[in-house]
Amino acid sequence: MQHHTDTIAAIATPPGEGGIAVIRISGPESIPIAASRFAGKDDLRDAASHTAHFGEIRSASGISIDQVVALVFRAPHSYTGEDIVELSCHGGTLVTRRVLEAVLAAGARHAKPGEFTQRAFLNGKLDLSQAEAVADLIHAHSDAAHRASLDQLRGSVLRSVEQMRAQLIQSSSLIELELDFAEEGYEFQDPKTLLGQLEVSVARIRELASTFKFGRVWREGVATVIAGEPNVGKSSLLNALLNEERAIVTQVPGTTRDFIEESLSIEGVEFRLIDTAGLRDSRDPVESEGILRSQKLLASSDLVLFVLDASRPFQNDSIERLKQVRDADPDRIVLVVLNKIDLARSPEKEAELKTNGFPPSRVLCVSARTGEGLNRLQEAMLGAASSVSPKPAEGSVVVTNSRHHDALVRAANRLEMALQTLREGKSGEFVAVDLRGALNDLGEIIGVVTTDDILNSVFSRFCIGK
Amino acid sequence: MQHHTDTIAAIATPPGEGGIAVIRISGPESIPIAASRFAGKDDLRDAASHTAHFGEIRSASGISIDQVVALVFRAPHSYTGEDIVELSCHGGTLVTRRVLEAVLAAGARHAKPGEFTQRAFLNGKLDLSQAEAVADLIHAHSDAAHRASLDQLRGSVLRSVEQMRAQLIQSSSLIELELDFAEEGYEFQDPKTLLGQLEVSVARIRELASTFKFGRVWREGVATVIAGEPNVGKSSLLNALLNEERAIVTQVPGTTRDFIEESLSIEGVEFRLIDTAGLRDSRDPVESEGILRSQKLLASSDLVLFVLDASRPFQNDSIERLKQVRDADPDRIVLVVLNKIDLARSPEKEAELKTNGFPPSRVLCVSARTGEGLNRLQEAMLGAASSVSPKPAEGSVVVTNSRHHDALVRAANRLEMALQTLREGKSGEFVAVDLRGALNDLGEIIGVVTTDDILNSVFSRFCIGK
Repeated sequence: MQHHTDTIAAIATPPGEGGIAVIRISGPESIPIAASRFAGKDDLRDAASHTAHFGEIRSASGISIDQVVALVFRAPHSYTGEDIVELSCHGGTLVTRRVLEAVLAAGARHAKPGEFTQRAFLNGKLDLSQAEAVADLIHAHSDAAHRASLDQLRGSVLRSVEQMRAQLIQSSSLIELELDFAEEGYEFQDPKTLLGQLEVSVARIRELASTFKFGRVWREGVATVIAGEPNVGKSSLLNALLNEERAIVTQVPGTTRDFIEESLSIEGVEFRLIDTAGLRDSRDPVESEGILRSQKLLASSDLVLFVLDASRPFQNDSIERLKQVRDADPDRIVLVVLNKIDLARSPEKEAELKTNGFPPSRVLCVSARTGEGLNRLQEAMLGAASSVSPKPAEGSVVVTNSRHHDALVRAANRLEMALQTLREGKSGEFVAVDLRGALNDLGEIIGVVTTDDILNSVFSRFCIGK
Repeated sequence: MQHHTDTIAAIATPPGEGGIAVIRISGPESIPIAASRFAGKDDLRDAASHTAHFGEIRSASGISIDQVVALVFRAPHSYTGEDIVELSCHGGTLVTRRVLEAVLAAGARHAKPGEFTQRAFLNGKLDLSQAEAVADLIHAHSDAAHRASLDQLRGSVLRSVEQMRAQLIQSSSLIELELDFAEEGYEFQDPKTLLGQLEVSVARIRELASTFKFGRVWREGVATVIAGEPNVGKSSLLNALLNEERAIVTQVPGTTRDFIEESLSIEGVEFRLIDTAGLRDSRDPVESEGILRSQKLLASSDLVLFVLDASRPFQNDSIERLKQVRDADPDRIVLVVLNKIDLARSPEKEAELKTNGFPPSRVLCVSARTGEGLNRLQEAMLGAASSVSPKPAEGSVVVTNSRHHDALVRAANRLEMALQTLREGKSGEFVAVDLRGALNDLGEIIGVVTTDDILNSVFSRFCIGK
């Protein structure tokens, strides 16, 4: 167990107003610090672990700040493994800040993002993949993301990686033994057996790595860009899908000057809907900036809803732009949304789209105004999503974290180099080096091997207070 | 004590993402309901009051939802006076909702806004003024508002009103006694003494009521409207004051289509800064709507920052509009902000303003772009604020709630009618009726006298989960 000499504190609940807010204090001085600002029936210094106490928090000069419940956890039976006091105060922004200030003035230091969880990791309460799962669980916006991050928090990735590492350590130790006794001509390990073991390892690691292609989408949602010429009803479509008036919708072309990103959940699948500025040339400085950014967003999307106006003739270059968007990335699904069918139906437009390679299954006729056709559009979106992110199977381990994915790919690549060395009959020393490298790569995932860079990049993703 | 047969539950922490979220469950079944979804080392049914227990929350079908800490409070030693379980789960929006859903599926009902505090009131844990202070404390954005609401939560208004009521009950009981024995010709009470007592009561009630004129500003902040012609730099001024890029600032006149309200705290005094659409005629439908609304906002403001462009000649009607705004309400303070002094200084404009009744102390030369003059503007704003809301004196009781203010005014008016009746030597019965009425009015403040309407209007102001 590591020992921290300082005591940290932060607001642990979301910012904003609510019934309750919680200030969390962790470290060797957390109980005396809280006790020095707490006035109640009980003295927190004498409090048993896992007990709650009602009282007031007062400033150094004795002025009352709030009525609170103080919850005491004693090391090592706490989230961080250290002494923790959690102060439940009234959930206002000002009063919460004042309580935190009183705690800081009494000797605690303001916690950095993720520092509580980092201490939990350093004190051996969680491995690194579980620590990362905490942040993922908090940011989960779909049931698939929730499922995957909770599994990871409960140790699914940890166990998979430990199994892989155990297998590699076995292979590795035999090689190292062989190397030690090489001059004596012993050959403990049948090269074929080792080859077979490593092939199995590579296959398992590649298999786990391959789950990332939908794990990413689970975690982040299906990036769905709403694209199209100005005034075809992109914002209206966004609002219709969200069923609320979030964007300003007017009849002036070019109204949407900034991006609006909204989360929409259809049957537990999350879509990040991104409304873009009109895809046209513009001299308006605010708008041109927006168009550049919308092209970047298009490039990183999983799904495009390309909106066309069914009630007017297509613009000269509409079909051209549509084909450009489709051809730029064959993995991305493009759904054509023929909007404003309440004004005019146009079978000839559907025929024109079909001629250009957009079959009826990819062309959705809707009216954002009346809501007609929205159900079919949502079904088509779900269909598109299932091709980029199938539903999680019960008990399956899925990698949702790009850091894990990168480490798995690196480990697999190293093992393939080792396999090649073995097949070429070269010295076992090269094999041993690559195996140790792969073990390191896997160790980074669960934090057996860490660097400051890894820890910083992992915990900077956290919010303060976790 | 009142008994509720149903058990309520809600998310008690602010919405959004954070380290921790708390689901609060209150009512006779709260412990069995939580226990039915909780899997941990301990059985919550056996848990002592004020103890915390680590475990998992599972759905009815046994699927894990989150790892939580369950905190048990047993009646009557809880916020509501009922059995309470608080589940601290990971602070994500989805995971929090899923935990709440599991609790609701197990038999709890979703709490209405303020329902926990309403139960605390009905169970005698708080009087009505203390219950209202809970909401005020949560919404407090200035130290003055925080101070006043915490005092109220600790019983300052309760004690003042109870003293006033005790005094009135004494006066009242003597009159009633006199009425009972009227036919026997007894006169227990010296009319002069009674007159004196009631005069003291009226004065005290009026004095308390009079504190509302700054109590309102403490609670709500100084409503500060930024007004002026288009393109004089209103949004830039707002941004400069807030020192951040919150509004879109462009060179196109009429960009600010909607209101932007931001809170700015200067030395603990809260200003609600309201940026308005340009005060000009417009054919743009979105903008005209905005102008109408900005005129309404002007009418209800405490302070106006009227922005003029120092670098261009005044528009024909600028001074006229400025005078209109000033003359419309003599209680409102108007500060003239001569903006863009980085482009041009104009002593002749200051002279013109002086001629029109705006002395140098009310005219602030600033550059929103460079920040020059902003300090002096902030000082002038503080000066203006202190005239509408002086700093709270230690130990003074201040009414911040319009419901209390209305009840105090009604009570005082009734007592003055009673005084008039007494002075005119009319029957004591009329006096008695008015005294009873005043007692009722005061009783409404602390909830000794309540109606469903009063309770509904008080608790609907709360957020859900409090």
